[in-house]
Parts: sequence; C-alpha cells; structure tokens
Amino acid sequence: MRIGIPKETTREEKRVSIVPAGVDALVKSGHTIFVETGAGVESHFTDEEYRKVGANIVYNAEEVYQRSEMIVKIAPLTEKEVDLLQDEQILFSFLHLAVGKKNVIEKLLKKKVTAIAYELIEKDDQLPVLQSMSEIAGQLAVQVGERYLGSDSPLGRGILMGGIGGVAPAAVVVLGAGVVGFNAARAAHSRGAHVIVIDNDMRRLRRINTDISKNISTVAANPFTIARGVKFADLFIGAIQIKAEKTPHLVTETMVKTMKKVLSLLMYQ
Amino acid sequence: MRIGIPKETTREEKRVSIVPAGVDALVKSGHTIFVETGAGVESHFTDEEYRKVGANIVYNAEEVYQRSEMIVKIAPLTEKEVDLLQDEQILFSFLHLAVGKKNVIEKLLKKKVTAIAYELIEKDDQLPVLQSMSEIAGQLAVQVGERYLGSDSPLGRGILMGGIGGVAPAAVVVLGAGVVGFNAARAAHSRGAHVIVIDNDMRRLRRINTDISKNISTVAANPFTIARGVKFADLFIGAIQIKAEKTPHLVTETMVKTMKKVLSLLMYQ
Amino acid sequence: MRIGIPKETTREEKRVSIVPAGVDALVKSGHTIFVETGAGVESHFTDEEYRKVGANIVYNAEEVYQRSEMIVKIAPLTEKEVDLLQDEQILFSFLHLAVGKKNVIEKLLKKKVTAIAYELIEKDDQLPVLQSMSEIAGQLAVQVGERYLGSDSPLGRGILMGGIGGVAPAAVVVLGAGVVGFNAARAAHSRGAHVIVIDNDMRRLRRINTDISKNISTVAANPFTIARGVKFADLFIGAIQIKAEKTPHLVTETMVKTMKKVLSLLMYQ
Amino acid sequence: MRIGIPKETTREEKRVSIVPAGVDALVKSGHTIFVETGAGVESHFTDEEYRKVGANIVYNAEEVYQRSEMIVKIAPLTEKEVDLLQDEQILFSFLHLAVGKKNVIEKLLKKKVTAIAYELIEKDDQLPVLQSMSEIAGQLAVQVGERYLGSDSPLGRGILMGGIGGVAPAAVVVLGAGVVGFNAARAAHSRGAHVIVIDNDMRRLRRINTDISKNISTVAANPFTIARGVKFADLFIGAIQIKAEKTPHLVTETMVKTMKKVLSLLMYQ
Amino acid sequence: MRIGIPKETTREEKRVSIVPAGVDALVKSGHTIFVETGAGVESHFTDEEYRKVGANIVYNAEEVYQRSEMIVKIAPLTEKEVDLLQDEQILFSFLHLAVGKKNVIEKLLKKKVTAIAYELIEKDDQLPVLQSMSEIAGQLAVQVGERYLGSDSPLGRGILMGGIGGVAPAAVVVLGAGVVGFNAARAAHSRGAHVIVIDNDMRRLRRINTDISKNISTVAANPFTIARGVKFADLFIGAIQIKAEKTPHLVTETMVKTMKKVLSLLMYQ
Amino acid sequence: MRIGIPKETTREEKRVSIVPAGVDALVKSGHTIFVETGAGVESHFTDEEYRKVGANIVYNAEEVYQRSEMIVKIAPLTEKEVDLLQDEQILFSFLHLAVGKKNVIEKLLKKKVTAIAYELIEKDDQLPVLQSMSEIAGQLAVQVGERYLGSDSPLGRGILMGGIGGVAPAAVVVLGAGVVGFNAARAAHSRGAHVIVIDNDMRRLRRINTDISKNISTVAANPFTIARGVKFADLFIGAIQIKAEKTPHLVTETMVKTMKKVLSLLMYQ
Repeated sequence: MRIGIPKETTREEKRVSIVPAGVDALVKSGHTIFVETGAGVESHFTDEEYRKVGANIVYNAEEVYQRSEMIVKIAPLTEKEVDLLQDEQILFSFLHLAVGKKNVIEKLLKKKVTAIAYELIEKDDQLPVLQSMSEIAGQLAVQVGERYLGSDSPLGRGILMGGIGGVAPAAVVVLGAGVVGFNAARAAHSRGAHVIVIDNDMRRLRRINTDISKNISTVAANPFTIARGVKFADLFIGAIQIKAEKTPHLVTETMVKTMKKVLSLLMYQ
Repeated sequence: MRIGIPKETTREEKRVSIVPAGVDALVKSGHTIFVETGAGVESHFTDEEYRKVGANIVYNAEEVYQRSEMIVKIAPLTEKEVDLLQDEQILFSFLHLAVGKKNVIEKLLKKKVTAIAYELIEKDDQLPVLQSMSEIAGQLAVQVGERYLGSDSPLGRGILMGGIGGVAPAAVVVLGAGVVGFNAARAAHSRGAHVIVIDNDMRRLRRINTDISKNISTVAANPFTIARGVKFADLFIGAIQIKAEKTPHLVTETMVKTMKKVLSLLMYQ
Repeated sequence: MRIGIPKETTREEKRVSIVPAGVDALVKSGHTIFVETGAGVESHFTDEEYRKVGANIVYNAEEVYQRSEMIVKIAPLTEKEVDLLQDEQILFSFLHLAVGKKNVIEKLLKKKVTAIAYELIEKDDQLPVLQSMSEIAGQLAVQVGERYLGSDSPLGRGILMGGIGGVAPAAVVVLGAGVVGFNAARAAHSRGAHVIVIDNDMRRLRRINTDISKNISTVAANPFTIARGVKFADLFIGAIQIKAEKTPHLVTETMVKTMKKVLSLLMYQ
Repeated sequence: MRIGIPKETTREEKRVSIVPAGVDALVKSGHTIFVETGAGVESHFTDEEYRKVGANIVYNAEEVYQRSEMIVKIAPLTEKEVDLLQDEQILFSFLHLAVGKKNVIEKLLKKKVTAIAYELIEKDDQLPVLQSMSEIAGQLAVQVGERYLGSDSPLGRGILMGGIGGVAPAAVVVLGAGVVGFNAARAAHSRGAHVIVIDNDMRRLRRINTDISKNISTVAANPFTIARGVKFADLFIGAIQIKAEKTPHLVTETMVKTMKKVLSLLMYQ
Repeated sequence: MRIGIPKETTREEKRVSIVPAGVDALVKSGHTIFVETGAGVESHFTDEEYRKVGANIVYNAEEVYQRSEMIVKIAPLTEKEVDLLQDEQILFSFLHLAVGKKNVIEKLLKKKVTAIAYELIEKDDQLPVLQSMSEIAGQLAVQVGERYLGSDSPLGRGILMGGIGGVAPAAVVVLGAGVVGFNAARAAHSRGAHVIVIDNDMRRLRRINTDISKNISTVAANPFTIARGVKFADLFIGAIQIKAEKTPHLVTETMVKTMKKVLSLLMYQ
Repeated sequence: MRIGIPKETTREEKRVSIVPAGVDALVKSGHTIFVETGAGVESHFTDEEYRKVGANIVYNAEEVYQRSEMIVKIAPLTEKEVDLLQDEQILFSFLHLAVGKKNVIEKLLKKKVTAIAYELIEKDDQLPVLQSMSEIAGQLAVQVGERYLGSDSPLGRGILMGGIGGVAPAAVVVLGAGVVGFNAARAAHSRGAHVIVIDNDMRRLRRINTDISKNISTVAANPFTIARGVKFADLFIGAIQIKAEKTPHLVTETMVKTMKKVLSLLMYQ
C-alpha cells in the first residue's frame, strides 16, 4: 500500500505520525512510504533518517496526498487539509468530530473518505490511544501544577511539592480517579505530596489504594467533600469530564471563587 | 554467682526478669539460679520450664533474697522489697530514683547495695534499655489510639485509622521525632494514616522522611504549627518529655480545651 | 419523594442511614426528608446539623414511617419496626432475610413492601456494600487480634504484632484470601507481622503477592497446611464462610483444641 | 531585643526573613519587632498579619535599621543596604563574602557589625542552613530538568521523565552523591526515571542504595564512567563543586561538546 | 475410585504426581490409592509417608496400571508407558501431544483412554497449570541467568546482578510481558537489576509498571527497540513463544551474532 | 612512577588488579605502566585495550617485577612471586598475613618491601575494601544458597526461594547482622524469602528493620533462638566470624547434625 506522512500544519503539533522505526517496519512489509520534507523536524527526525529506512521524500503536501492511498496524520484536519484528501482515500488521524466543524464532516462524507479516528479505536472494551493520552495528561498535570506552585509563578506561593525536612509537602487534591486521575495521583504521591482523590466510583478509589499506595486518602464525592477538597488543596487537579448540566451541583459559584487561589487544570478523563 | 529471680509484686507488672532461655545460658556459664515459685506465670513460663534448664525453685521471696548474691528484677522496688535486700547485695532493676520515695534511696544507701538501674545503662552514648522501651511505647501509642478512634470508645467517632476505599484515613499528628515519635510515626504510616510529625530538630525530621517515607509531612515546631496540628488531628500523640516551665509556650489553655476532643498520649521520649 | 430516616433501635447499631451531607444532596435534588430526633447522635451528628441542610426533624418513629414514601435504615428491622411499615412503602436496609425470622418476611410480603437489601445490591458482578463491609472487617480483625495478643488480655502473651529490634513479630495466619482475607493480610503485613495466607484459589493467592507484597507467604489449602498454620500462628484469622458440612474435613477436633491457645476470629467473606 | 525585618531589595528574592509565626514567638518571648511595610508581600504575608502577632510596621528601610539592635535579612546586602547598617549592629543574613565585593566587607568591618552568615552556621559538624538549601536545590534540579526535557523547550525532545506504558523513562545521570545529588537522585527515581549516580566516595553511593533504592545504579567516578554517563544521559545533573584545576581531567572538551544535546545544571554540593 | 501413582521414568523428572498430603485428602474422601514403590523418592517423600496416610504401596509399574481406574502422572508418557495403559482408563498427565509422537496418539485413541492434559486445563479463561509453570519459569530464568553472569561461567563476565556500592547492576532485557516475562521482570527488579521489558501489548506493559514498579522501563516492541535491547543487555531473557515465520522480522542474523555474548533463554510464555 | 601489573597466577583468581580505565587515569597523571601479557584475559580485557590507553605490554612476569617501582596485585603472593619482588619495592595486594606462610613474611621483611594489604586499609574507622568484599559475599551467599535449594542439587528439595502463588517461600535464617549479614538479608528478602536475622547487637538488628524492611524478623541471639533458627531454616547463612572457643556455646553437636539437612555457608563478617 502507498502510505503518506504529511507534515503537520498546526503550530502546536510537534509530533510526526510515524517515526523512522515505524517506516522501516512498513517498508520491510512491502509498503511504499511518502514523507513530506521536514515532517519529522519538530520531533528531531531528519529527512535523511527517513530516507535511510526506505521512505520517499516528497516536497509538498499536495504530492503526499496525491500519491498515497492512505494518509497518516496526528492533528485533526484543517479545512485546507481536507481539501487535499482524494476521493475514497483512507485517513488515520485524530478527528474530534464531536467538536469539529460541520463542513469538515460533510466534505469527508462527500469524498467517501474512510476515516479512522485514533480517539475512537477500541480494543477489548478499551480506547488504547486515549488511554495513553490520558496517562500523559495525568503526569503532565502534576508537572505543570508543580511549576505553578513555585515562587516564580504569579499564583505560586513558593511551595515545593515534596516538601523538605521541616516543611510539609503540598496538599494535592485530584477530582476523578479515572486514567488521568490515577496517573496524576501516582505522580503527585511519588513526588512526596499529600494526595487526596475524590470520586464517586468506589472501585476506582480502591484501585488507587491497592495499585498506588494505602497512604493516598480516597474520598467519596459529594458537594461537601468536593468543597472541602477545594479549600484544603494547594493544587487542585480536575480529572473529570464535566458536562454542563452536571456542574452546578458539584462546583458552586462560591467554590469557583475560592478556586481562584488554587490551580484548576480541567482535563478529560 | 548466686542469682535470684523474685516474683514481681505489683499487679500491673506481668514480666519476669529472666526467661528460661536466659537462665539456661547462665547455668551453662556456671551460675546458680534461684527462681521464686510462680515468677514466670504471668509471662506464661511454668516453674517446670525453669527447673528443666537448671534453676532452683524456691517457695518464697525471702528465700530468693537470702540465698542470692545478685537480685534481678523488673519493677522498681517497693518498700517491702527493699527491706528484703541483703547488705552489699547486687541489684539489677528499673529504679526510677528521680521519682522514687526518699526512704527507698536511703535504705539502698544504708545497705550498701550495688544498684544498677536499667534506665541508666549506657552503651556507645545510647541508653539501650530505654531505647527498646521507647520503641514499644511508640508502637503502642498508635495501637491504643487506634482503639480509641473506634465507635466503641466514648471519645471515638468511628474512624478507621487506615480508611477504606472512599473514606479518608485518620490524620495522626505526632509531636516529637525522637525514638517514641519515630516509631509512632512509622506505625501510623504503615496503617495507612495521614501522618504529620512536628519537631524542632531538622535532622530528626529528615530521618523520618529518609527512613520511613517521603509521604510523611514533617513540620518545624512553633506555637502556630503545633496549634494547627492539634486542631487538624484525629489522633494527637505527644512524644516529647515536657518540662513544666516550657509547656505554657507550646501548649496553651485554648489548645488543651480543643484537645478534649482528641487523644493526648503524653509519653517519654 | 418523601424519605424517612428513623433512629436505629438496636443498642449496637451506632450508625445513621444518611449523614447530613447526603441529606443536603437529596434536598437539593428536590426530595423532602424526615429525620427522627436524635437519629444521628451516636454518629456525632446533631438534629441541628440535619435541620441546617433542610431536613424536617420529627419527634417519634411512627411519624417518620407515616409521612415517608421511602424508609432508609441500617440494621435489619425488628418485628416492632416491621409493624410500623406502611403498605407498599419502599425500604432500604440491611435485611439478612436468610437468617431472619419467618414472620418478618411474611409481614413484608403481606404489606407489599418494596424492600431493597444492601447486602444483595449488585453492580458489575460485585456486591459493593458487602465489599466495603468486608474491607472494614478485614482491617478490624487485625486490630482486634492485635489487642488480644497484648499482655492485658487473658489469652495474650504480651506479643507486639510488629516486633521490635531483637524480638520477632507475630506470625499471623489468615485462612481465606477473599476481600476480608486480603484486607486482613494487608493490615497485618503493614504492621510488620509475618503473614501466611491459606486459600485453595491460586488466583486469589497470586493477587496477595502482586497487590500487597511478595513477602507474604501464600499456601494452597489442604488439611495438612491448615493444621500447620493453626499450630504456627500467634494469631489465626478465619476469613472464610464455613458451611457446616465442609468443616470436618478442614478443621478437625484436634485442631480446635490446639486453637484454644490462639485466636479464632471467624468472619464472613 | 529590638529586631528589624527590612523588605528585601533584590528583584529575585521573594522570601521574607521572618514569617508572622516567627514574629509571634519572638514577641511572646519579650522582643520588639520592626517590620518594613510590604516586607512579606512577595511571600504572601500582609502587614496586617504581622501587626496581629504584635509587630510594629514601619514605613521605610531607614527606620527599620535605625530602631533595631539586630537586623534579620535573607539576601546578601547590597552596598546601599550596608550603608544603612548602624555601628555595632548585629546582622543575620546570607553573606557570601567569598564572592562578595571588597568594600562591603570593609564597611562591615569598619562599622564593627557582628555579622552572622547563614551559610556558615555550624551545628554538630553540619551546616544546617546549607543542608536545607541543598535539599531544595536537588529537588529543583530535577523539576527544572523535567521541564527542559519537554517538547516546549528548545533543547527538549519531548521526553516524559517517568515514561508511560511502552515508552521508556528518561535516563538521569547525577554527578555527585552529596546532599544535592542525594535529593536529585531521590526526586528523579520517584518520578520513575532510570537514575545513575556517579561519585568517588563509596560510602555516599552505598547510602543512595540503602536510603533510596537498590534500583539506582551507583558508579565509581573516573573519566571513563563520567564520559559514558554524559553520553547516556537524557538529563545530566552536575551536583559537585567543581574547582577549576580539577575539571580538565573529568570533563573533557569532547564531553562538553556532547553535552550540548543534554542539560547541564551545575550546582553547589 | 482406584487411583494409581506410578514412579516417573524419565531421568529429569524428579516430581511425583501426588504428594502424601494429597493422598491423605483422597483417602479421606473414600478413594483407594496405589503408589509405586519409590515414586516419591526424588521429591524426598518415602513409601512410609505414603503408607501412613493410607496408600497401598505396590512394587512395579504394571501393578499400578492394572489395579487403577485412573492414572495420575507428570511427564508425558513414553511409548513403554502408553503400552501399560488399560483400555478406557482415565489419565491425568502433561501430554504435549502437539509435539508428541504420532503412534502415542494413535494408541491413546485406540485404547479409548480419557486423557486429560494439564497444559490444556482451562478455568475462567485461564490455563491454571501453565500459569504456575510460567511463574516458575520466569523466576528460574533470572536465577539461571544470574549464575551465568558470574565469573565462574565461561560466558560470564563477573557481573553481580544487583551491583554493589559503586558498581552498576546488570541490565536485564526481558522480551515479552506475559506471565513468564512478568515474573522474570519482577525477579530481576527485586535483585536490583536495571530492567527493560519489551512487548507490543501496551496493557501488559502498563501492568508491569503498575504491579511491579514504575522504575522498570517498558518499551514498545519493534525491530529497532529489540535490536537496541539485545545490544544493551547484560542478560537477555526471551519470554515469547517464537513462531518460525515471525522470527526473521524481529531477530535478524546480525542480532543473533551479537547475542553470542549475551544469554538467550528462550522460553514459552 | 613505574607501576607493574602482573598476571595473576592462582587458578581461581580471575580478576586483574587495574582495569584499562584505571591505567588510562594513571597514564594521564604521568605514570608509566607495565602490564604482563594476558593479565586481563580472565576479566575479558585484551592486551590491545591496555595498549590503547598507554600501557606497555611486557611478555613475562620477571620483566614486570624488574621494571616497576610498584607492583599492584590481587591475590596474596605465592612463594614464587615473593621471590620476584625487588628490594624496597612497593607492593599493593591482599596479603592475609595472619593466615600466611611464615617464610613469605620473612622474605618480605628481608627485602624491605613496603607492602600495603588491601584488607587492612582504613578510612574513617572503616575498612573500605573489606566492606565491598563483604557486600559481595552477602549477596553471593544468597545466590549460591538459592541454587542449592533447587532440585538439581543433591541436598536441595526443589524449593523456589521466593515461592509462587500457593507455595510458601523459603525460610532463610541469617546468623549475624554485620555487613555480610545485612546484604544477605536484603538479597533474600528482595527475592521474597521469609527472612530471620539473629544477632546479639540490637543496634544492628534495628538497622535491618529500618534500612531494609520491618517485615524481616530480628531475633536476639542466644542458644535457644539459634537452635530454633537452625531447625526452622530452609537455608541457614552463617555471617559471623566464629572463633574456636566461642562455638561450643552457640552451635552444639546436635545442631550441627540437624544442619546436615540445611546449608551452612560460613563466612567472614
């Protein structure tokens, strides 16, 4: 099969969809690979590295799209990229159609593109790609939060997450014990923080105690416990997917005001 | 040498000064041992077990004291026991002379007894017997406190020290990071409690973090941090030796009132 | 819906079926709550706390039962309480019908009460309420056993569960690796005890080694290994549901006699 | 004694020399405290908080210096601050005289100031203030390094220090196993990194394995092992005090060139 | 039922199919047991021990086979043993028919033997006997590998798996994160080795990090990562079931040559 | 200085006194190095590797001894080697003079050799070389013992040190809590064994519990506890330096007979 790897076009997206090791495996399995020049640069892979394992370097996106049967990307397609897609082409990419523009969807339908969204790939009742993204999100939430606790952040009060001899560590409250929350709790606990995890699923909370540590406090979620958590936290990590109509019950006006002094990293679980 | 092991006479003292294994070692080294009948009963050792390893069972305290060159006891001597001591006899026992009765001391002096107090035995700048007592005290403080947190205690509020899935563990505040405090902190932490240790010696606090866990909060002692600790604690363990004139600064009237709802196990460090 | 919270009537039952935080959530969702005066006293919640979150305090049980569409209790109903139930009322409570009195069941049927037993609530193939009860039971078994090992217990031999430097810890044998056994093993292991777990389900035993520690001995159950466990144990924790006809094989007369010197805490798994 | 707390004047110094809790203790011990207005602002303490515990707020630095017998500061004094010092005044501060300006020293001498440098305070053969600074430095080195490994740093290659399932963690090489190195190794290890510590003091290396984890690789320092460490590291943390004449042997030209792709956080041990 | 336990006839097989404790349970359940004399010798069980629990000792294999309705063995049957089987007899044993001789299968069919292969017993979607074998294999792979790293092995280079202060531990690369790989990784990690696990199943890799330690590097399998693993390893443990046609992709000629300096313990997962 | 590295002459000694990295450092510091051809072969270092870092390869031992001012060896010198020493030469080596031959000592004295024994080098009240040897000995004792527990050893009973699900681990009793004992206890504990350490120094035993794990049983040494340990052990590791006259008390005839079924690895502490 002819597979195309275009360069990502959004500024924040520094990844490349397939690394040279992956290209190598595909070439050895008999596929032909087209890589847009510079596609790997932001990920520190040169054209040369792709060429060595057998990729064909092409010099603009149009060529990648035209010569390939299948396009492998990372970021959801911009309208301009959708226009480059060929009729009946296969597309592997994050799509985020639920929050996407209407005419992107219409164009995909019209071109009869077979579009496979990473975020919807299922295997054994799990979403393996989202799982990995969530693991990273949980760890990064703590890493970013740690930075904001420092004295060089405008909100920070010079708190060292793990404390030192004679100085207590930060209190980190994690709302949600899914994959993001689990990884955030583990990262914060391993840094020496005092961690409290709030969720309304007892099984998830038990897993925190069994798989990370008995020394993480787990708390059944209700407006009282969440309010107390918000007040107590030096760092508050939101790891639940809040749906509009649910919020008012859990996070009141007053709590949001209180939260101004803390950090609110709302992420997807 | 002729060594005597009298039965302890205070009701609370259930130990015996030398167990059969110790008697065995002494007999094999050539000593003669006199054990008062029933001396080991409270510790679950029968006269028969002592006899088997070569001890001579005698049937009253007077005989033990009269036939022995050295008396080995546990509890500080009552006046009655002091009267049984022979002139120039050797005595191994806890003595607690600092808090003892004046005439006990006078009698010991008058009888020219060579009295060796366990609590003052030094080896390599340490007090090995007190060290062991303090290890036990630290562990017991947590064990007893755990019981009082339960719902069958009048003060208790049905708190499970280690929590369960969805229910946060108890907050245990330990004042003092000496041997008692170290062992109390370790016992409480291993039960899953959220542990805070307060001391004014940074090196001791660091040792808590290095030798037990980074996840114990260590806090430099000052009136503010102690007051906050008292307020925050479900279980408050005093593990410092409070000298009268020092107390007012650290533990105020208000704090003592607050403490009524918590547990105060004041022990010797 | 009109929901009633009667005061529990059995002496040992110190819990209240819904705490003020729960009432708050229900009131905010539009329900009307009737709380019998003093219902929360044994759990340290005052009428005032219930009133603040919007409950109506009523002054006897009859009124609670008459004004409510749904009754929420903890302990299985006494006959007197069953008489208070209204026809076609909804009841949330522990029921323990399997061991209950025949006429209680008949009355429930006759009154067409919709009775939901906590102990039978299923979710994802689990019994979430029993699960929490078993977690607590496992931890308490160790806490209670620890107390009985002490020298102030008539059976106790002055053993400190975790030992101290130079004194070996207690040997704790747990029969059964279900939820109770798992939690008992974890609690005993974390206290420093030498723990042996006996079960005939290898997967449960593996989970002990994976989720708690490789340093817990797991042993396949057969009459030999159980007999050896009984003999070896300082504390023996029964965490299996023994059915009459099964027992003779596993726990023989001789073993029961031997057990007199150990502790037998037979609990439900 | 009259004690003065001036506001720090260097932009980077956000700390205040004594927090309100400390002022409270001093006032209760009978001292008089002068705090320059806004001294605590960068540390999030208001004048009001100082006033509440009995401090006198004064409105410029001159007044603090003139009314106090003792000045307590954090950052080494600027020339302008030295000019404010009164003759024979007592000064508590970091001084860093070894790297300080000559005329600062001369002025201190001329004014007969009793200057106590935090960095030189000794207790039991240790430097307690430096010890705490080093603990913080070690933890921060890892925290900062972690940030630079991320994809939003120009040098970073998008490495997550702790890895995730299927992606190996970062290799962190720590040169030096003193207080800074020990704390850096512990912080990196707890984040899940693969940690290698290089030192030429076997006792320090053993302490890493005993007090942190057997799973940290400890390596005896020689030019070969350091060169290999530099090459292997994703993050290289220098935690030794390099003296000019020693460097050439250990860190060669080639190594420095190689290091360009890694991070070099040279700190004081 | 009449059950026969013949002595194993292959030199390497030192196990006996049922130990005395098992015989005891069977006899108590009403079965009659025939044990070939010496069957337990290699496992350190005497005929006397079998006789005590009620077994009948018989003096040759023929008698065991003729008097029993069911034969319980360990090792797959040799042709000679198959000839001893009675028509319609029940057989419990490892069979390994997939790699067995054709005429063994034919004879089993012809004699209408009900043959139950341990390796194919399923329970809850698992193969419990293979699971236990794999646990042992994983631990032994590390134990054997450790020996070969030592200086008294011809391939060994005097490497101590856990290192000592100043000497880095061995790098152990485990290919495959199934039961064998999991147990090998745990055994190597607990010995202090630097462990890398390679697999293409992210869930298995996550389990390594969750159930063993975050400090094990997990790496997604592809030819590049495997090649790097082979090169990096001091000890390489193969814990995958390699099927002929798959190998060339993963393990190239060059890699096999490189491997000559390492250890290749290829085992079944 | 001219430094000579002769090839070791005893069959068991596979080490070389200085590895190429060490030679490199010495050459760079201005020394001249003579290496006997093949000196590094048993340690897997070729002559070529030595030559590359600047060593002079010489072709027999005589030449090494004659051209060098200082000889660096590992194994104590044989008589033949002593004869090769030059008058007033400097010698670095293990010497073990206490157990050495009389005429070796006399020759060293006569030749006025400055002999520095590794085993006697002191630094900060420690013997750093012996310390490292003891660390290795402790780990190897467990590694060797593990092998002997296996079923392919004549004494072994097929015990897996760490057990598996359903099979208890081995009981490992370590006599002595010095450096050897500490490392043996740590190695056995990390393999999952049930470890008991016996010593008469409480401080050493406490260090086992603090620095390794609370789950190792520590037992004060006396004839009773040692006898029980010998009986209980699957693997018994002697880690004390037994002096002839002391033995009878601790290890009796009966115990030695019992020990025949266990392993006795008597080593130096």
